[in-house]
Amino acid sequence: MVLLSGGLDSATSLAVARESGFRCYGLTFDYGQRSQAEIKSATAQARAQKVAEHRVLQLPLGEFGGSALTDTGISVPAAETRGIPSTYVPARNTIFLSHALAWAEVLEAGAIFIGVNALDYSGYPDCRPGYVAAFQRLIHLATRAGAEGGRISLEAPLLQLSKSEIIQTGAGLGVDFAKTVSCYQADTDGRACGRCDSCRLRREGFAAAGLADPTVYRTA
Amino acid sequence: MVLLSGGLDSATSLAVARESGFRCYGLTFDYGQRSQAEIKSATAQARAQKVAEHRVLQLPLGEFGGSALTDTGISVPAAETRGIPSTYVPARNTIFLSHALAWAEVLEAGAIFIGVNALDYSGYPDCRPGYVAAFQRLIHLATRAGAEGGRISLEAPLLQLSKSEIIQTGAGLGVDFAKTVSCYQADTDGRACGRCDSCRLRREGFAAAGLADPTVYRTA
Repeated sequence: MVLLSGGLDSATSLAVARESGFRCYGLTFDYGQRSQAEIKSATAQARAQKVAEHRVLQLPLGEFGGSALTDTGISVPAAETRGIPSTYVPARNTIFLSHALAWAEVLEAGAIFIGVNALDYSGYPDCRPGYVAAFQRLIHLATRAGAEGGRISLEAPLLQLSKSEIIQTGAGLGVDFAKTVSCYQADTDGRACGRCDSCRLRREGFAAAGLADPTVYRTA
Repeated sequence: MVLLSGGLDSATSLAVARESGFRCYGLTFDYGQRSQAEIKSATAQARAQKVAEHRVLQLPLGEFGGSALTDTGISVPAAETRGIPSTYVPARNTIFLSHALAWAEVLEAGAIFIGVNALDYSGYPDCRPGYVAAFQRLIHLATRAGAEGGRISLEAPLLQLSKSEIIQTGAGLGVDFAKTVSCYQADTDGRACGRCDSCRLRREGFAAAGLADPTVYRTA
């Protein structure tokens, strides 16, 4: 079970899961995020990497508001901010992982892959190693598999990698990064704003990795 | 933040939260469960106990299948079963709590109340004390509040109570149990089948508590 957001981290996480020998199922969420291009991109990535099945679930996260990514009344910041950014979506990874866990239980999957990384997103509490460990413990206690002596492993293979290391890993596994969207406010064709934090991290990542950046920006 | 299922446990959990002095928000899920009467009942209970706001969220759990409660291809068992029953919905409480957590973060709520109890539902892994403790730890690591030194407390006030003790607690706090539905397959008017495990536990609970059972059954 691989969470696919449409971004380069989850595309790389999927490539790592395939490389590890797993038959992969992709799960993407349509949660009212600004960038609907992410969903198209996740679908293209699932197809390119030949997952056994890809599902897109509708979730009503936008109803709660509280984030620049789901609430159009809050603007996406152009500059880096201190502390937890306004693009943090309350409990997002917990909600994503809990749905992944449901499908994983039904499929009797051996692992859930999530593309979180702690270095570049240290502002998000639910991208940290302690969080991943706490969810792994929860999985063990929450599930039929755990109760019956089995195990669903929570894998975060990018947790300790920088953006440039993730790009190098993905490139080494043949990921087509042109089919990924990182921008928090990409247009419907997937063209990036070039100004948000996510665009900045991606651009710096390709530069540091010494690889050509396939991102199409709407501003020159 | 109080999870309201429409059953007597969550109605009692709400009454305990109110008694503790909380201003309460009710959250109910429409997840494709067999008994849509549960949602009507949760709404009636929210109104009767005067919550500040009650929301019903649509969740696509039925898409995964794997449970007698969401998959019409699996029948609800009449008799008690060993191990984890077929009415177990994969990751249900994890999914419910993760959405409650999102709303709780936005509201800056101090606590989430869930009406799980370990004694009568020992077959469900996600109703046990260890599970509740693991989710509390996850909340601390997952949230802005946790990262900034605050706390959202996970309260399971019925965890160690039997069904009859829950009924006595709720009755003492004035809960109108006629406005609750426990049956796994109640009809649209909320009338119970009288045969499923949940009906049996409820009937035995009222008998053991020495209180009149207000449940309306479709069979005599």
